Amino acid sequence: MADLENIVAYMKGLQDRICADLEAFDGKARFEQELWERPGGGGGRTRVIREGNVFEKGGVNFSHVHGVMPDKISKRLNIPEGSRFHATGVSLVIHPRSPMVPISHANVRYFETEDGRYWFGGGMDVTPIYVREDQARDFHRDLKSVYDALDPGYYPRFKKQCDEYFFLKHRNETRGIGGSFFDFMQGETAEEKEAIFNLVKATGDNYTRLYKPFVMDNKDKPFSQREIDFQMMRRSRYVEFNLIYDKGTKFGLDTGGRTESILMSMPPRAEWAYNYHPEPGTPEARTMELLQPIDWLAEETVTQ
Amino acid sequence: MADLENIVAYMKGLQDRICADLEAFDGKARFEQELWERPGGGGGRTRVIREGNVFEKGGVNFSHVHGVMPDKISKRLNIPEGSRFHATGVSLVIHPRSPMVPISHANVRYFETEDGRYWFGGGMDVTPIYVREDQARDFHRDLKSVYDALDPGYYPRFKKQCDEYFFLKHRNETRGIGGSFFDFMQGETAEEKEAIFNLVKATGDNYTRLYKPFVMDNKDKPFSQREIDFQMMRRSRYVEFNLIYDKGTKFGLDTGGRTESILMSMPPRAEWAYNYHPEPGTPEARTMELLQPIDWLAEETVTQ
Repeated sequence: MADLENIVAYMKGLQDRICADLEAFDGKARFEQELWERPGGGGGRTRVIREGNVFEKGGVNFSHVHGVMPDKISKRLNIPEGSRFHATGVSLVIHPRSPMVPISHANVRYFETEDGRYWFGGGMDVTPIYVREDQARDFHRDLKSVYDALDPGYYPRFKKQCDEYFFLKHRNETRGIGGSFFDFMQGETAEEKEAIFNLVKATGDNYTRLYKPFVMDNKDKPFSQREIDFQMMRRSRYVEFNLIYDKGTKFGLDTGGRTESILMSMPPRAEWAYNYHPEPGTPEARTMELLQPIDWLAEETVTQ
Repeated sequence: MADLENIVAYMKGLQDRICADLEAFDGKARFEQELWERPGGGGGRTRVIREGNVFEKGGVNFSHVHGVMPDKISKRLNIPEGSRFHATGVSLVIHPRSPMVPISHANVRYFETEDGRYWFGGGMDVTPIYVREDQARDFHRDLKSVYDALDPGYYPRFKKQCDEYFFLKHRNETRGIGGSFFDFMQGETAEEKEAIFNLVKATGDNYTRLYKPFVMDNKDKPFSQREIDFQMMRRSRYVEFNLIYDKGTKFGLDTGGRTESILMSMPPRAEWAYNYHPEPGTPEARTMELLQPIDWLAEETVTQ
């Protein structure tokens, strides 16, 4: 049943399963856990993996916070001042060591107020350093299957929202190859709430399965300083997105969230060169061309 | 006279003089210039120094843009929609190679609308990787002398505004040792406008003189990987400030400014470690303690 207790239990279990899977992919590093408490109520389990075979730095954060809404947020969400709320979710960002393995992000979240309102949000998306079109297509095909099993309207809608959300306007480029993004999902009946919870579970439960090929097929590929340089540039765009645009980051920092848990999404290292433009015809230039909203499942993906 | 033509000419000349001084400090690298035009009117001269003896990456940007105000900005500034405006200024950020040499920032700017309103803004501030208290005091003493010659109220006011502006709320720390910051400086009479222009000139004209000791006294100091690691962390805080809080960056990106000129403030490389805390009693810990608003000119600066 989609009640608070079950949702919180799901989130905790999801964090456990994702961490176990990622440790298995890595083969060496283990997550370290830090428990934290929020002065106003609740807390979380921040788990960080570092210096692995595959993962240079990654975080998988569970939190369940509750209490009285800060006025600033009440106003923004149009909720009576002084309302009590619960918010719970799992949020993760993984920065692999190799430039051949994409950065990965997923998030599932639930919010409810004492007057009975609630919403779910979530999604997953992939940020390759070098976009491989075959892998992008495979990922989107698998993601579509996951959502089609629930509602054929989901994938096109959430894919589009993902492209729109993870877009760096000042660069005119997407963060990566997209995936899914949904927010403020609400229902009228218990059945509808159950259906939305199923959407959230489908997202969370399939995350590591869908990320796995990006890791396994690429982690042993050779690379040189050239690919590392490009990775450092691509990571700087990741930083720009998260600090300039990301609503979760802004919301978290604004509401006095735990800074280290929020900013665990930052890459271990990033570089900014002035006015970077790859040589035409290079793999780097090709990737830059592909950082646009693309219908990866079109009959023929022509992106010239 | 403080009219648009003279102010623009001052800004251009200031850029020239600052670049010449910084080239002399560096002794090797030269600024490269890129001219750009703004589709709506005006443009700028972006000058970048790279891979120098002293300066790893730095930018000194002049711009003079004009045209019709974007509605978004008119609203924010409470100006009639469709007003014509001019904006001009010099903005610079310098990232030295050595962790012993502070990052430096200065900015002077002027804005006017066709209905006769105007304001000036500006300031300079210093972000040492390692705060040296003697140098911080010398800098603040010299800065105070510069402003005291114009108005004894200036230094205390602009010093305070600088501490407030360059503050990372989510870290509870200042960006560096501060300096001066002023904005929306307006006068009623021609004499008052002249006086404010003098304040702006005093800021611009004294920038390299006040930065010079930070460069010359520190550039040949030895350092090891430990200091570089700390530099990478301190630079990541610089990135956080500029992308999360800096109004100029936000304004520039919001209004479709030239991204590369705006983000030339980014350091060449930065690193984020999860949950960094220096060992108590180390020079790194001492610097972290000093990243607070401090009255550097108090009889005895006790900052325990």
